[in-house]
Amino acid sequence: MKNIIPAVKGTREFYPEDMVVRQWLYALIREVSESFGYQEYDGPFLETLELYAAKSGEELVKEQSFVFNDRGGNEVALRPELTLSLARMIAQRQNELVFPLRWWSFGPFWRYEKPQKGRTREFFQWNADLIGVDSPQADAEVIALCATFFKKAGLVPQEVQIFINDRQLMETELIKRGFPQEQHKNVFRMIDRRDKLSLAGWEAFVKDNGCTNEQFVQLRAVIEDKELWHSSPKITHIFQILDFYGVGDYVSYDPRIIRGLDYYTGIVFEAKDIGEKNRAILGGGHYANLVEDVGGNSLPGVGFAMGDVVFPLVLESYGKLPSLPTMPARILVTVFDDDSYKASVALCNRLRVVDINAVLYPEPDKLGKQFKYADRCGFKAALVIGPDELSRGEIVLKDLATREQISFPNEELEDRIKQWLAAEKSS
Amino acid sequence: MKNIIPAVKGTREFYPEDMVVRQWLYALIREVSESFGYQEYDGPFLETLELYAAKSGEELVKEQSFVFNDRGGNEVALRPELTLSLARMIAQRQNELVFPLRWWSFGPFWRYEKPQKGRTREFFQWNADLIGVDSPQADAEVIALCATFFKKAGLVPQEVQIFINDRQLMETELIKRGFPQEQHKNVFRMIDRRDKLSLAGWEAFVKDNGCTNEQFVQLRAVIEDKELWHSSPKITHIFQILDFYGVGDYVSYDPRIIRGLDYYTGIVFEAKDIGEKNRAILGGGHYANLVEDVGGNSLPGVGFAMGDVVFPLVLESYGKLPSLPTMPARILVTVFDDDSYKASVALCNRLRVVDINAVLYPEPDKLGKQFKYADRCGFKAALVIGPDELSRGEIVLKDLATREQISFPNEELEDRIKQWLAAEKSS
Repeated sequence: MKNIIPAVKGTREFYPEDMVVRQWLYALIREVSESFGYQEYDGPFLETLELYAAKSGEELVKEQSFVFNDRGGNEVALRPELTLSLARMIAQRQNELVFPLRWWSFGPFWRYEKPQKGRTREFFQWNADLIGVDSPQADAEVIALCATFFKKAGLVPQEVQIFINDRQLMETELIKRGFPQEQHKNVFRMIDRRDKLSLAGWEAFVKDNGCTNEQFVQLRAVIEDKELWHSSPKITHIFQILDFYGVGDYVSYDPRIIRGLDYYTGIVFEAKDIGEKNRAILGGGHYANLVEDVGGNSLPGVGFAMGDVVFPLVLESYGKLPSLPTMPARILVTVFDDDSYKASVALCNRLRVVDINAVLYPEPDKLGKQFKYADRCGFKAALVIGPDELSRGEIVLKDLATREQISFPNEELEDRIKQWLAAEKSS
Repeated sequence: MKNIIPAVKGTREFYPEDMVVRQWLYALIREVSESFGYQEYDGPFLETLELYAAKSGEELVKEQSFVFNDRGGNEVALRPELTLSLARMIAQRQNELVFPLRWWSFGPFWRYEKPQKGRTREFFQWNADLIGVDSPQADAEVIALCATFFKKAGLVPQEVQIFINDRQLMETELIKRGFPQEQHKNVFRMIDRRDKLSLAGWEAFVKDNGCTNEQFVQLRAVIEDKELWHSSPKITHIFQILDFYGVGDYVSYDPRIIRGLDYYTGIVFEAKDIGEKNRAILGGGHYANLVEDVGGNSLPGVGFAMGDVVFPLVLESYGKLPSLPTMPARILVTVFDDDSYKASVALCNRLRVVDINAVLYPEPDKLGKQFKYADRCGFKAALVIGPDELSRGEIVLKDLATREQISFPNEELEDRIKQWLAAEKSS
C-alpha cells in the first residue's frame, strides 16, 4: 500500500456499514423523543470559550476541549457539550418561546481525550431537555424518556440501570457531617472520581485535595449509604412517578452519582450497563440557573446527554444490535448493450417513480459480470432487458438467491416488482 | 435584555422551525439518493491540512478554511469539503470495496467567508459521488440525480438549470487559441471568476494575471461560444442520456462553467437558479486522479456538493418551500390534580405504545391554563381525565380548533384517537 494520508487521531470515518448503525440510532432517538413530544433543534458547532468558562467545569473546558483562535482572532471551541448553547438560544428568545418546552438534538461534539475503546475525540450525542418547570414530575419525565429509550432498544433492567441522586440531598448530608458549603463544589468532584479509582486510590485523592482523615471517613459513609433517599420526599416522589410510567425497574438510587458538570443543582442521574463492563451510557440532571447564567431570566431545566460510541457497544455485548442492510436498493438493472441502454434507463425511471430504489449498471457489459457485481454488492434481483426481451416486449427478473429467472410483460413491471419485493422481504 | 453571550459570527442556530426545514431537506436528499441506490457515509469533521493542500485549490485551503493546531500540535482544518476525505476512505479499503460504488452524505462543513444572505461560515452539504467508472453514462447518472432532486422538490426547468462543460474540451480549445498547457490552471481560475465580475472588471483581472490583449480576446471568444459543445462527442452523448432519464430540459451547455476546485479533469457542472437572483445551487464534476492523489491506486470518480443555505431560499422565492409542522405531537394530555396524575401518565403510556406521540402537561394546574398552553404550542387536541371522568370510566377529548368536547369510554382510547387524528389530518 502506498502512503495514504491518514485521518486525524480520534476522528470518525463512517463507511456505509457504520453509517447504518448511526442512522438506526438516530431514528430510534427521534422516535422516542418525538413520542414524548420533544422538538428537534441544533446549536452551533463552534462557540466562544467564554460561553463554557466557569459553567461547565474547568476540566471540560481547560483540558478536554478543542480550543483555537479563528482568523478573526476570537477564542473559539469546538462544542464539547450542548446545554450552554441551549441555554443561550432560550435566553435569546425567552419572550417568544412557550414554556415548558421540550427540545432534543443529535449532532457532533468534540473532546480532546485519549482515544480508547468506547471513547473517540469526535462523537455524536443525543441531548434532550425540558425547560421551564421545577418539579419532581419534570425530573421524572426526563428519566422516563431515557428508560423508554432503553426499553425500545430491547434492553432490560437486568442489563441497564439509571442511577439517580440529588445534589440538594447530598448538600444537606454533607453539612450534617461537617463539610462547610464552600467545600461542596470540591467534594462533588471527589465523589465524581470515586468510580474511576480503587478505594485506596480514592482515599489518597480525597486527602490530597484537602480532606482530613475524619472527613474521608464521613464522605465514604455518605456515598455508601444506599438508603439515604428515604429521607428525600423528592426522590421518593420521582420513584413513584417512574412506576406510573411503567419503568420503575430501570431506576435505582446511588449516592455516588454526582456528575462532573458544575451547573447541576438538583437531581442528577447516570445510566450504566450493569453487566461486567459497568460502562456509563448517559448522564444528566437538573440545572436551576443556567439560562440566567448566560444572560437570560431565571428558568430551570432538566436534561441529559448520551454519546453514540458506548451505546452500540452495550447493545452488541447483549446481542441486541440489529443487523442492518447497507444497500438501500434491492434491484440492479443490467445494461445489455448500447442499443438497449435507453430501455434500461427507462426501467429505472419507472421503478423510481413508484418509490422502488434501483441501481443502473453504469454501462453495457457481459451479463455474467453484471450478475457477479450484483452478488458482491448484495442486490436481491437483477433485471434484464436485452434485444430478445425488447423484441418480445418482456423483462427478465433474475432472483439472485435462487438463481431462478422469470419473464413478464414490460407493462407489468411495477406490479411484478412490488409483488416480488414483498415476497422476498417476508422470506 | 441582559448581556447574553452571543453566538460566533456565521454559525447556525436551528430553532425547531429552522430544524424542520433542515430535516425536510435531509429527508428529500435521502429519498432521491437512495432511489438511485447511493449508500450513505460520512467522513471526519477534522482533517489534516495536508489532505487538502494542493488538491482542493489554494484559495479554499489558505484563505477560506478554519485551520488550527490541536493540543497535540497537529495542523488541522475543519473540513471545507468532503471529496478528499471520500478519496482517502476509498483508498484505505480499495481492495475490499466493490466498484463502481455510489455514496452520498449530508453533514456540516466550515468556510471562513464573509457571512451574507445565502452564505454562512457553518453550513450543511449534500455530497454524492459515483466512483470507479469513467464514462459519459457515469457523468450523466450523477447529473440526472441532481435533476431528479430538483424535480422532486417541485422546481421546473424554467426555474433551475444545470449548466455543464468539459475541462478537456476547454483545454483543446485553449490550445487551439494559443494558450499553452502550463497556463491552463491559471486560465481556469480566470474563467471561474467571470460570473463574479463585470466585463470590464474581468478584463482587468485577466490582464493583471498575465494575459495579453489578444489572449483576452481569445479567452472571451471561448467562454461566449455556446455552440462549442457540438464538437464534443462526450457532451453530445451526455445530453442524449439525460433525455433518456427524462430530465434533458434541466440541462444546458455553458462554456463559462469551469468550477473552482483544482482536481476536476473532465465534465464540470453547476446548477443555478435562473430567476433574477442567478444563485449557484450546487456544483460538481469528474475527477480522474483524486484517489491516487491521496495515496490509493488510480480510480476515477464523478460527484457534486450542494449547500443547505441557498437551496431553501430558492424554493422560498418560487413559493415551493413546504410549510412544515414544528410540533411532533398533536395531542396534549392534561393533568387535573394530584390524584388523577397517575391516570394522565397512563393515557400517555397507552398512546405512545401504539405510536401516537403525546405530551403530558408537566403538573396539575387549572384546565383553562392548560388549554391555553395547548393553543400556544399548536396542539390539535387536549385529553382530560379528572375525577369526574375517572368515576365514569371515561375520557374527554377537546378539539382545539372547533372547541368541541367529546367523551368516550376509557378502553376505547387508542381507537378513538386514531380515528380522530385521521379525520383531523384530512380536514
